[in-house]
Amino acid sequence: MGGLTLGRYICERLYQLNVHTIFGVPGDFNLTLLDKIYETEAEHGTGSFIWAGNANELNAAYAADGYSRVNPGKLGALITTFGVELSALNGVAGSYAEHVGMVHIVGVPSNEAQEKQMLLHHTLGNGDFTVFHNMSSKICETTSFLRDIATACDEIDRCLKVAYTMQRPVYIAVPSNMVDMKVPRVQLEKAIDLSLEDNDYDAQTEVIDHILSMVQTAKNPVIIVDACASRHDCKQEVTNLVEITQFPVYVTPMGKGTIDEGGVGGEDMSDPNIISKITMKLNTGKSVASRFGGVYIGSLSKPEIKDAVENSDLVLSCGGLLSDFNTGSFSYSIGTKNVVEFHSDHTKIRQAIYPKIKMKEVMQNLNSKISAVLGSYEEQPVPKLKLINTPAPPGNHLTQAWFWTRVSSWFREGDIIISETGTSSHGILEARFPNNVIGISQVLWGSIGYSVGATLGACMAAKYLDQNRRVILFVGDGSLQLTVQEISTMIKLGVNPYLFVLNNDGYTIEKLIHGLNAEYNQIQPWDHSKILPTFGAKDYQFVKIATMGETNEILKNSSFAENDKIRLIEVMLNQFDAPLDLVKQAQFAAQVNKGK
Amino acid sequence: MGGLTLGRYICERLYQLNVHTIFGVPGDFNLTLLDKIYETEAEHGTGSFIWAGNANELNAAYAADGYSRVNPGKLGALITTFGVELSALNGVAGSYAEHVGMVHIVGVPSNEAQEKQMLLHHTLGNGDFTVFHNMSSKICETTSFLRDIATACDEIDRCLKVAYTMQRPVYIAVPSNMVDMKVPRVQLEKAIDLSLEDNDYDAQTEVIDHILSMVQTAKNPVIIVDACASRHDCKQEVTNLVEITQFPVYVTPMGKGTIDEGGVGGEDMSDPNIISKITMKLNTGKSVASRFGGVYIGSLSKPEIKDAVENSDLVLSCGGLLSDFNTGSFSYSIGTKNVVEFHSDHTKIRQAIYPKIKMKEVMQNLNSKISAVLGSYEEQPVPKLKLINTPAPPGNHLTQAWFWTRVSSWFREGDIIISETGTSSHGILEARFPNNVIGISQVLWGSIGYSVGATLGACMAAKYLDQNRRVILFVGDGSLQLTVQEISTMIKLGVNPYLFVLNNDGYTIEKLIHGLNAEYNQIQPWDHSKILPTFGAKDYQFVKIATMGETNEILKNSSFAENDKIRLIEVMLNQFDAPLDLVKQAQFAAQVNKGK
Repeated sequence: MGGLTLGRYICERLYQLNVHTIFGVPGDFNLTLLDKIYETEAEHGTGSFIWAGNANELNAAYAADGYSRVNPGKLGALITTFGVELSALNGVAGSYAEHVGMVHIVGVPSNEAQEKQMLLHHTLGNGDFTVFHNMSSKICETTSFLRDIATACDEIDRCLKVAYTMQRPVYIAVPSNMVDMKVPRVQLEKAIDLSLEDNDYDAQTEVIDHILSMVQTAKNPVIIVDACASRHDCKQEVTNLVEITQFPVYVTPMGKGTIDEGGVGGEDMSDPNIISKITMKLNTGKSVASRFGGVYIGSLSKPEIKDAVENSDLVLSCGGLLSDFNTGSFSYSIGTKNVVEFHSDHTKIRQAIYPKIKMKEVMQNLNSKISAVLGSYEEQPVPKLKLINTPAPPGNHLTQAWFWTRVSSWFREGDIIISETGTSSHGILEARFPNNVIGISQVLWGSIGYSVGATLGACMAAKYLDQNRRVILFVGDGSLQLTVQEISTMIKLGVNPYLFVLNNDGYTIEKLIHGLNAEYNQIQPWDHSKILPTFGAKDYQFVKIATMGETNEILKNSSFAENDKIRLIEVMLNQFDAPLDLVKQAQFAAQVNKGK
Repeated sequence: MGGLTLGRYICERLYQLNVHTIFGVPGDFNLTLLDKIYETEAEHGTGSFIWAGNANELNAAYAADGYSRVNPGKLGALITTFGVELSALNGVAGSYAEHVGMVHIVGVPSNEAQEKQMLLHHTLGNGDFTVFHNMSSKICETTSFLRDIATACDEIDRCLKVAYTMQRPVYIAVPSNMVDMKVPRVQLEKAIDLSLEDNDYDAQTEVIDHILSMVQTAKNPVIIVDACASRHDCKQEVTNLVEITQFPVYVTPMGKGTIDEGGVGGEDMSDPNIISKITMKLNTGKSVASRFGGVYIGSLSKPEIKDAVENSDLVLSCGGLLSDFNTGSFSYSIGTKNVVEFHSDHTKIRQAIYPKIKMKEVMQNLNSKISAVLGSYEEQPVPKLKLINTPAPPGNHLTQAWFWTRVSSWFREGDIIISETGTSSHGILEARFPNNVIGISQVLWGSIGYSVGATLGACMAAKYLDQNRRVILFVGDGSLQLTVQEISTMIKLGVNPYLFVLNNDGYTIEKLIHGLNAEYNQIQPWDHSKILPTFGAKDYQFVKIATMGETNEILKNSSFAENDKIRLIEVMLNQFDAPLDLVKQAQFAAQVNKGK
């Protein structure tokens, strides 16, 4: 029994919650806290609790976000130091916007230094120690500035519960002198209660009865899966709903990767029978993947998908997050239909809102009853998705359209696929994922450079899950420049992602919105072949691909397919070549900016 | 006459205020505003108004800060885009803490999008468009969120005036639809009034009489010059005060570079008569440099400086900013003495505060009267400063102590010398600057990585002043990793700084504070020779120096001395070798963290 230090308590609680890597940057107000990370690792075994030591605070926040999205514990953690903690806020705000559970822990000056209003470094020089806490409170679900050791453990537990259950960032400020104060070890023995409050029985019954009556009369219902389904741990409920009902299921850009799509997954694409093989595989049994209809993104959708969704007479929307880039600039045309929306904190049927009727429980209940009302439902077909490219001469220059279809057949089950905002996040929508793939893209917050940090985070979470899960990044040459040094941390930590750098000579997405040839959308050209060795990589691969033949060659190579070293693949593309939906999206964005 | 666009109005106002480079990153809510930068350049001539196009927002903020410190116009400007603007805040907060004039302009969604609470990308997804503005208001002197074209110009003028006169950051949010709205051109014709309000006559008279009576009886008065003397444009007043009184003058770490130090400046150090030559030069006339006594940093000062300052019977403190790292952890022992403090917004004599008696005017008045009371003053000697190293074998490994003395004789008049927080900012205190040098170091805010962005900013300001002024950076290998990509922007913009990278294998300053051998203070080793070519440099120099002989050789080389290409010099140092005062400072910091 006895006591342990407060710093150690924080680490042990994170460990209990399945957080095994802590991201951040050392600073003199957090150094003693960092000691506790190593103590915790020593307790639980080498590799069980790791300090990442990022290249900067923003990258660390992105990494914690990426980690949380892959970690089954659905939390990431970040440690920064007072004042310069501000560098992390863009990353934290992104986690808030996109419903990502994260704990931002800040090492702050001692209680005494605060009381004396000492003009310490990392302060504004005005003796006000509350400023940065106040700023973070605007982008966090809850915060705690620890002052009293008697309540510190309860405060920490409260914040961790909020981060998990609400899937948002929380902020905990830890004064440097409190880190080594003792707290009772017994508090660790009781696990933090992470359960959601039960839905109100009567209200939930009304909701379910209402939905069942709508399902009973629907001729061509569809299911749409969006971001919050995965963020709020409802993947299984959504999957069950599709399996039981066999309704066609579509994803939004932010929902992609939440359900099985049955993509080809590393098969030999030169096999002349490949299409029929895949088709057969897909149509076997009543798999979710056989009901997958593609990506719905309002008027930017492929016509057959748009028709199928918008002509349906009942939409079951799971975890919707209706931002511009997620909906084709708010061009959904399902508003006047029968729509049921399942959200993390309420349910909506047509125009009626049922507060606190939370997605997970209501869907579980619905799934247990829905088969009874499916008697008259006749299975509707789903749109066919393109799986392989039309054959082309190997010397042809790469195009976006060809590339995304080709690379998607190189993916395999279990891959974690991260796409940067811009051509990558749009291009990836063309790919049909194999089953059990995790897709990551920061569509709503859309901070360029995010994906590089997120890749590091995903690698660390994947490493703890299964060393063989591949982490694959698609990032533009422009976005890469914002956060490139996080590749150094990947090398330091020995993770082996695939870094596909789409070299299209600048910020293509911005060019399409405004300033097609403007100087401000140009970037300094880099020698991408030198990035890995500059950052100290010893065992690595660099490949540059510019033609369809070169692309086929590398993607057919079996040793390339194994993630046994870090690889950077420079993909040469024309600067104005972009996925078609991105071009349309950019036109919408330009209109909105003009106030039209 | 007629009208011009609001976007153009902003640019023209900045141009009028001597801002010739705008830092930032393009984003879809600021693109049309960026067009106006190019229009403004076209109007005033190539190179007159430049968009820097930084690698990321934080680096851009650091660059705007460095620019402002060198620009005689005492302003820097930064443009970011809504939401991801948060990445810049650590840099903006640093400008606030350190009294640096800066304008942070943010391109935000159109008024209409705000009114409709559209769930745009770069929002938190909750329809609240005020969050980021609120956050910035905590670290800015004033802010304006433009909404009404009728008052927009006045609001812009108001913010610019505050940024200049208060030497703090201000924030202006510009909705994308307002950029192309027309405003009357006539408003540009009246310059923004940048004058400070006159000091109250009676109060100022009382202050001056009081000071004069103290001067009249003082036997060994000293002058201490701190940060705000240069930030609030009082270099000339301080210089005049020293020239007239011939009192010994000391600088704080943050004041270094404000007054002439008479350092050797590129002389041939192998000349056996060098010492007597320099001494003669220093003692000629009544130059300010001949009265320069060194750096006062409380109990961390050299003993002869500590004695001289703390035994003086009158301290005239100009622009004091008394933070821990600027005072040797608050170890000033002048508190009970006769102290007069000149500040930007008040004057303090002993314990009496005179609000609104501003430094610049009161010093001008004092300078016009002070010679009348100096009749009985006998000139006091100033401490001797070490100018050159004791000869040593060329094969000796470099040490911090030897390096800083050696490099200081390589400096020359007009150099702009930037030192990163850590061993560099402490080591540079050992160097005696030649006259007319600008020193930059972020001692109070102390955000590591700052100096790399600041170097870019300084280069752009220097370029407009005089292409031949050299910009010289000293940065540790750890700090460099946070912001390394800004070297790419330097290459893109064709500036030629000297980048001295002190490779001491990790965060030495943090090691000394806590965790001497801790893993979290280690960094991934980089191949520094590859950095410049990776970022696309064609004409560049890389040198690695590890011995005293190698250092002498490169610093004697006359072509190396010319800033005709970008140069990166890797300086190999032992990881635990640090300037002595840094070791003591670190011990203090560790105490404060423990709450002792």
